[in-house]
Amino acid sequence: MVERRKPIPVAEAISRLYEYRKYGEAEFVPIENCFGRFLGADIVATHPVPPFDRSPYDGYALRSMDTLQATREKPVWFEVKGTVGAGSVYPEKVGPFEAVRIMTGAQIPSGCDAVIMLEATKEIEKDGRTLMQIKKPIQKGTNISFAGEDTKKGTVILEKGTYIHPGVTAILATFGYQRVPVSRKPKVGIIATGSELLEVDEELQPGKIRNSNAYMVYSQIIRAGGEPVYYGQTSDNLETCYRQVKNTLEEVDFLITTGGVSVGDYDYLPAIYERLGANVLFNKIKMRPGSVTTVAELDGKLLFGLSGNPSACFVGCELFVRPLIREFLGSTNPFLPAGQAVLSAEFPKPNPFTRFVRGYIGFEKDTLVAKPVGLDKSNAISSLGAANGFIVLQGGTAGYKKGTAVTVLFVESQDGQEFDRFIKMKF
Amino acid sequence: MVERRKPIPVAEAISRLYEYRKYGEAEFVPIENCFGRFLGADIVATHPVPPFDRSPYDGYALRSMDTLQATREKPVWFEVKGTVGAGSVYPEKVGPFEAVRIMTGAQIPSGCDAVIMLEATKEIEKDGRTLMQIKKPIQKGTNISFAGEDTKKGTVILEKGTYIHPGVTAILATFGYQRVPVSRKPKVGIIATGSELLEVDEELQPGKIRNSNAYMVYSQIIRAGGEPVYYGQTSDNLETCYRQVKNTLEEVDFLITTGGVSVGDYDYLPAIYERLGANVLFNKIKMRPGSVTTVAELDGKLLFGLSGNPSACFVGCELFVRPLIREFLGSTNPFLPAGQAVLSAEFPKPNPFTRFVRGYIGFEKDTLVAKPVGLDKSNAISSLGAANGFIVLQGGTAGYKKGTAVTVLFVESQDGQEFDRFIKMKF
Repeated sequence: MVERRKPIPVAEAISRLYEYRKYGEAEFVPIENCFGRFLGADIVATHPVPPFDRSPYDGYALRSMDTLQATREKPVWFEVKGTVGAGSVYPEKVGPFEAVRIMTGAQIPSGCDAVIMLEATKEIEKDGRTLMQIKKPIQKGTNISFAGEDTKKGTVILEKGTYIHPGVTAILATFGYQRVPVSRKPKVGIIATGSELLEVDEELQPGKIRNSNAYMVYSQIIRAGGEPVYYGQTSDNLETCYRQVKNTLEEVDFLITTGGVSVGDYDYLPAIYERLGANVLFNKIKMRPGSVTTVAELDGKLLFGLSGNPSACFVGCELFVRPLIREFLGSTNPFLPAGQAVLSAEFPKPNPFTRFVRGYIGFEKDTLVAKPVGLDKSNAISSLGAANGFIVLQGGTAGYKKGTAVTVLFVESQDGQEFDRFIKMKF
Repeated sequence: MVERRKPIPVAEAISRLYEYRKYGEAEFVPIENCFGRFLGADIVATHPVPPFDRSPYDGYALRSMDTLQATREKPVWFEVKGTVGAGSVYPEKVGPFEAVRIMTGAQIPSGCDAVIMLEATKEIEKDGRTLMQIKKPIQKGTNISFAGEDTKKGTVILEKGTYIHPGVTAILATFGYQRVPVSRKPKVGIIATGSELLEVDEELQPGKIRNSNAYMVYSQIIRAGGEPVYYGQTSDNLETCYRQVKNTLEEVDFLITTGGVSVGDYDYLPAIYERLGANVLFNKIKMRPGSVTTVAELDGKLLFGLSGNPSACFVGCELFVRPLIREFLGSTNPFLPAGQAVLSAEFPKPNPFTRFVRGYIGFEKDTLVAKPVGLDKSNAISSLGAANGFIVLQGGTAGYKKGTAVTVLFVESQDGQEFDRFIKMKF
């Protein structure tokens, strides 16, 4: 018997799902280990940047008023009273027609209000004194990086949920965050269903294939920022499958199953949702591949029923699981970033449902081009190797010509977009 | 005394550096740990994909020749002899006007050459037999995924040096690579120089700042695919510094120093290179920031002398260190990927040297826009937080107007480009 399901738009599916978003607490990691995590708290500037007035170049610090009369014909001479290196503080106040040799990054000595670059001066020794010559006036403030000109103390310089890339690490180090507050990674359980599946280390057998979805999803979860836990495969036995889902659900923040959500005789997930008393948010989406992707909720915990078809599984994970993981981490732009590119191939077939075609999106000369990769078959595993995004062919369209501008989604990017923008994309 | 250095173009610097590229050996990791690594060997398809003729849908497998006479008015009846699920093999040969109920992914029974989808049929029970009705002919091969149609056995399906993303993981699992050959990560030593530097866990002191470069570079190395080892800071003492560089060099594949490469009185690196007998490949580049970035080579091992200025340090690491790390990993496109975007701000200043401006490159509606971030000062640490790339302002240009198309480099991307293309970019 074929169960009848009512397909809903992708945006509607995401909206239903997003109601059950939840957030993880913060934990601390050493700064060496923070790369790739998400900030678990706002980061405040613990001091101004620069922390003091300093010289951005090697040169001489002096009083600008003493340079006013300097010309090429009548240079002004300064006595060089000493040297200040980065990390040191010059101990005396600098007076009229005195200068201090200053190194890049060193604090401006008291009394000085400008720095002249080393290259613009000439130094001589005379009667045991060091003299330095200036041939044109310089203005007050020249070559000084002023305290706080980059950042004021107390500013929230990085927000909770920010992805930690190397630039963020630099800011954390500057402000002394040896231990960095990061969001706890959600624990995402994976259960594979399907009696045709062999484990990765098993020999091939007639009629069977190795389980690739579980390891693919495992990597997708890491990339999204979660902590995957692979609970192995179930048999196609309903009872076994039900118990495993029920037990695993208690140990994880999110649960993913692969396979078993279709309407075939061995697709047990619908029956399992019913036995668990789970609330099925949707079980049919106007998309290809992955129209049977199902999401259910039990006591606020989400069960993602991804299709057993590798491409559909991949799409479902990126569209539905990734944003919930990123949201858990506090990201304010948890959804896949979108852009526009020029389609490099023809898609003559009509698209009753929105199609997410795996593609490679990259520049050819100065144009961003979206190239479909591999066979356009949902079981074509080879195409997964080259793809770095999806080409979105809107539902209800008659077909796409080569050269058409199309919406693309970047799956490898650490960027993202927020819920409101994402669901307005007319999927 | 000011040392005179002859500046060379960025492309020339990269060419000199690239001569000293080297490669790491392969090692094996469990498939769960392979995400983000680079393949250390070509991956060969150990079987065809699909491994056998199979059904992509739920339906009935039959002989297409038996359907030829079927019409809406005169349906053809088949006897359903049994069922074959995914992972099973139907034991008998299917004869004339016989059909086998088949599940998605199951092997096509012997004798059959087409599958009719479940939705297009009607099944009835009659006289203890199960019958199935077809109302129109189907062609030979309909709804069959043929063995090897995606991938032939023995095909090199992934090349050595490929970045391992989730799609690659799926392919590895499919072909039974429970242990994955990956390139050994190069060990990249980091030594920070500069007596103004405090460690990240120290209290701020007058005239001093915390060391942010080392941790920034630490993260950049991880992102590039290397294994950073932070050897701490040296004092501005030449002897100490020399010994530390010499000893560290023996323990690593590449060595990065931050600071000390300028022409200031406390810039010891030039003296250290001389004492080591290292071959200085360049010490002045036509770029901003980071013109003093220096690279030397000793017995084929590269010493990267990055500027102590945070922005210059960041740029130097991405332009010069990243590609050598990726090359070591076997990547065939180790250089930063480039694209074109529309400049969102004016840069009226002339660019005697090529300028690498930190920017955020992202879509605004349908246009890729390059937005400079933070102050355009090389010490502006806050700008590092928001940047995801560089805006390249070519050397020898008079200035850039808002709305100009500019070359951009994406630092967060796992994509890349090869040497030949990169150096042709007219830096």
